[in-house]
Amino acid sequence: MDIQERIQALVAPDSPAQQRRAMAKAITLLESTRADHRAQADALLNALLPHTGKCLRLGISGVPGVGKSTFIESLGVFLIEQGLRVAVLAIDPSSTLSGGSILGDKTRMERLSVLDGAYIRPSPSSGNLGGVAEKTREAMLVCEAAGYDVVIVETVGVGQSEIAVHGMTDMFVLLQLPNAGDDLQAIKKGVMEIADLVVINKADIDPDAATRARAQIHSALRLLGMHGHPDHATLDTVWQPKVIQISGLLGQGLDQFWAAVTEFERLGRANGRLEARRQQQAIRWMWERIEAGLKAAFRHHPAVRDALPATTQAVLGGQLAPSSAARQLLGLAGTLTAEPSA
Amino acid sequence: MDIQERIQALVAPDSPAQQRRAMAKAITLLESTRADHRAQADALLNALLPHTGKCLRLGISGVPGVGKSTFIESLGVFLIEQGLRVAVLAIDPSSTLSGGSILGDKTRMERLSVLDGAYIRPSPSSGNLGGVAEKTREAMLVCEAAGYDVVIVETVGVGQSEIAVHGMTDMFVLLQLPNAGDDLQAIKKGVMEIADLVVINKADIDPDAATRARAQIHSALRLLGMHGHPDHATLDTVWQPKVIQISGLLGQGLDQFWAAVTEFERLGRANGRLEARRQQQAIRWMWERIEAGLKAAFRHHPAVRDALPATTQAVLGGQLAPSSAARQLLGLAGTLTAEPSA
Repeated sequence: MDIQERIQALVAPDSPAQQRRAMAKAITLLESTRADHRAQADALLNALLPHTGKCLRLGISGVPGVGKSTFIESLGVFLIEQGLRVAVLAIDPSSTLSGGSILGDKTRMERLSVLDGAYIRPSPSSGNLGGVAEKTREAMLVCEAAGYDVVIVETVGVGQSEIAVHGMTDMFVLLQLPNAGDDLQAIKKGVMEIADLVVINKADIDPDAATRARAQIHSALRLLGMHGHPDHATLDTVWQPKVIQISGLLGQGLDQFWAAVTEFERLGRANGRLEARRQQQAIRWMWERIEAGLKAAFRHHPAVRDALPATTQAVLGGQLAPSSAARQLLGLAGTLTAEPSA
Repeated sequence: MDIQERIQALVAPDSPAQQRRAMAKAITLLESTRADHRAQADALLNALLPHTGKCLRLGISGVPGVGKSTFIESLGVFLIEQGLRVAVLAIDPSSTLSGGSILGDKTRMERLSVLDGAYIRPSPSSGNLGGVAEKTREAMLVCEAAGYDVVIVETVGVGQSEIAVHGMTDMFVLLQLPNAGDDLQAIKKGVMEIADLVVINKADIDPDAATRARAQIHSALRLLGMHGHPDHATLDTVWQPKVIQISGLLGQGLDQFWAAVTEFERLGRANGRLEARRQQQAIRWMWERIEAGLKAAFRHHPAVRDALPATTQAVLGGQLAPSSAARQLLGLAGTLTAEPSA
């Protein structure tokens, strides 16, 4: 199948079933690590680009037990009832080891997965976080070309995967339990700081605790925002990070949640921040992949691979200064002889 | 002057004046970016190594106004009175722009700088944080070879420079004002998490506020430590991060501070953590310099330099996927063709 046929089946399919097959095939191609597939995958990716960008990219994170799946399923059903098409992707940093703790179980999100307007795909399960994130970013573009209105990227992690999801979405939502101790963990991991919206889930279980948690998180967001996070300026025309309460199980507060998301999107499109954020993300993504590629090439260089164990031992044993060791290894890698501090 | 003469003048000088000159010359050589100096500098560095490692490396940080200079000066005088020799170095991330806000003013630390047992050197002022940190790490080795008992590395920053100082010292001390809002900032920047000791300075100004701040920071350290920071395990034989109150101006609490530092060092030497931390730091330092070198070589590669502006524009304009752009640029750099996600 050539690129134009693939694009046609994604963008203007004969049937929903044809489009679903085309999406699955495209994502499988993009996930392939075979060198001959990679050239095809790059051609497909760049041919997809003109058909992307119209969708809202929504990142959702929260610790295990916060009720992410239930919330995302309720949200998905709610949005499809309003005539929108919703894709759910995931970045699960544990998927390589565990086989995936989120979206891995096919029986999850049963209500959502049977709906025509829904597309659900579990986390890629091979490679490091950078590699997994790249595959999810590319799968997101496939969903966008296929005309999905909202792409939700779910994650659960220890900071790094949230940063990755924040780096590929328009809006980053943090789900919290009505529990004050969790705030500090989220602040520590740098997750609170990047949240555009904090949602206190399971607010129905203990409304008083939820109200207290809301006040605390609100004050934390204000303090964190005060020191110049670029997305959180203080003009009236820009979004201020908000805290809302919902109950994912009962479906309460979904309209309020969606109103907040819509307002975020409206402001971001009006003041240009949404587009600026996407451009910044694209450039960072490019450099992140360049750095990963440079490190991989360095580690695979035969002379480096041969010298690395003895050099590492000399550094550990205090016979060789780390900066000297770095210069020696860079010299072995041949062309890599620029001054590190330049 | 050959390497052996340089080492002799540092390790077994004829006079204190000769040693001081040798230290200044060695540090100047290590800071040089000239390619011919670099080979000599590496030879000097590796010849120094056997004479290093016996000193205690103490990192001290805190926001502007917390009283770092006054505290460090009082501490330095206190230690010299006990017969120890003390070197004070600095990493000032703003030094490139401002000419240096810490240790830059020669009139600062007047009481300390006139003492024989003291050696004070301001932050290197050229290059990025990685380059500045490398120069300070290397200057630290010169001080160690010259027999200084304590090397204090001072910094003031926005998180990154504290991480750099933590990565080169045995113990990282955070100075705080008796002010609760500062805690959250320190937690946000990841600085509280890496602190081995938090010192509430200026406790004499408002003793009640200092006591409250101490209780809050203590509870924050416990919560942060609970989630498995490797340096903060919960056995009796390992150090637990502590909070103490002092007054730098009045010199109150210095004995308590030094008792805490001494206990940290004793435990760390007994349980092997001090040595393990130094080895880990050395390996990280090597990789950090390798990564900086790879990036610099990549950016200076003629084909990359030529293609980068147009490629960046194509990514910004949405005509080229970031991961495709990364692969194209890596391909242009010649040998760097390994799979980025490998």
